[in-house]
Amino acid sequence: MIDEKGILFVLSGPSGVGKGTVRKSLFDRATDLKYSISMTTRSIREGEKEGTDYFYKTKQEFEDLIKKNRLLEYAEYVGNYYGTPRDYVEETLDHGKDVFLEIEVQGALQVKENFPQGVFIFLFPPSLEELKNRIINRGTESEELVKNRLIAAKTEIEMMDAYDYVVVNDEIETAVQKIQSIVQSEHCKRERVAKQYKKALEADFS
Amino acid sequence: MIDEKGILFVLSGPSGVGKGTVRKSLFDRATDLKYSISMTTRSIREGEKEGTDYFYKTKQEFEDLIKKNRLLEYAEYVGNYYGTPRDYVEETLDHGKDVFLEIEVQGALQVKENFPQGVFIFLFPPSLEELKNRIINRGTESEELVKNRLIAAKTEIEMMDAYDYVVVNDEIETAVQKIQSIVQSEHCKRERVAKQYKKALEADFS
Repeated sequence: MIDEKGILFVLSGPSGVGKGTVRKSLFDRATDLKYSISMTTRSIREGEKEGTDYFYKTKQEFEDLIKKNRLLEYAEYVGNYYGTPRDYVEETLDHGKDVFLEIEVQGALQVKENFPQGVFIFLFPPSLEELKNRIINRGTESEELVKNRLIAAKTEIEMMDAYDYVVVNDEIETAVQKIQSIVQSEHCKRERVAKQYKKALEADFS
Repeated sequence: MIDEKGILFVLSGPSGVGKGTVRKSLFDRATDLKYSISMTTRSIREGEKEGTDYFYKTKQEFEDLIKKNRLLEYAEYVGNYYGTPRDYVEETLDHGKDVFLEIEVQGALQVKENFPQGVFIFLFPPSLEELKNRIINRGTESEELVKNRLIAAKTEIEMMDAYDYVVVNDEIETAVQKIQSIVQSEHCKRERVAKQYKKALEADFS
């Protein structure tokens, strides 16, 4: 009945909160979401495919895209650029497909700046104790490093006010299910659909 | 972790769209929603219970409540008043329970006036043809009556702009599931929960 555009969903939250695990679990289920493919200047590795794992660009090409504001966000990491190409996102949305992006808090805020019509979901730790445990369990990090990451997490949690939704990651299944509900309910938002619905019905009335 | 207040959900839509069927199907499932109990001046009938089927009041009592603005909406029907008592709704929400109200469009607009913090869901017919069929199938209504009700439905659909969500009632199961998603995602809205979440975590930090 309705020719609807897709929605960009951005999942973010402090480091150690479990964004990657939740995202993997979400994509393990049947989902219509398209995962946002990043762009990078690092070399393609064996087994990787252009347009599947990454879009591979030269440094020059990447910097051109930055200048032309064709990246929703980007960062430099160990000498290489990584970013989210606006064109891929917009084309996917135009085809009526939702795009799902999982990203650090700083990146999410860049996306929000460049694409405010996105839906921003903040993954929240069940408790500070739990966040600490997850950071520690990640690897052999020193006490000093853990402390620093917790302070960073506190700052990131302050950024929560820029988000539309907050989902507590106390249980992965519950968190994933809440994200699915957010996706479904966003498609029912009156300001998104009312105009088209009315139009479809008015065609019937006439 | 969080001591959260309940949310008032209002399901409405044009007559003939299937509000009652969707509501029944929603409550047939396991749900934490509390159905809003109406107040009436009509006599209690055999088998009915005060506070379960209705809150029964005298005409004088009801009119007092109208004057004191203790009804979220009310209407007169065949010589009796029917309405939604504000106190019952607010007490239930204060206990952390969501309240669910299924009501005609005019009533929903009254509720919105008196309780704008509610979440308003508009049930939308899949097509005009389908709405017509449903109105006809309801009983032995004359062609003139069906025509009038369709004109009324068109006016009611114009009211859609006052609502937060629009759910197409093409399939009952899908519509119910969308309403459940809306209920769940509304509880994840940042403006509802961020303050409490931050507070809980700050207690951990200190």
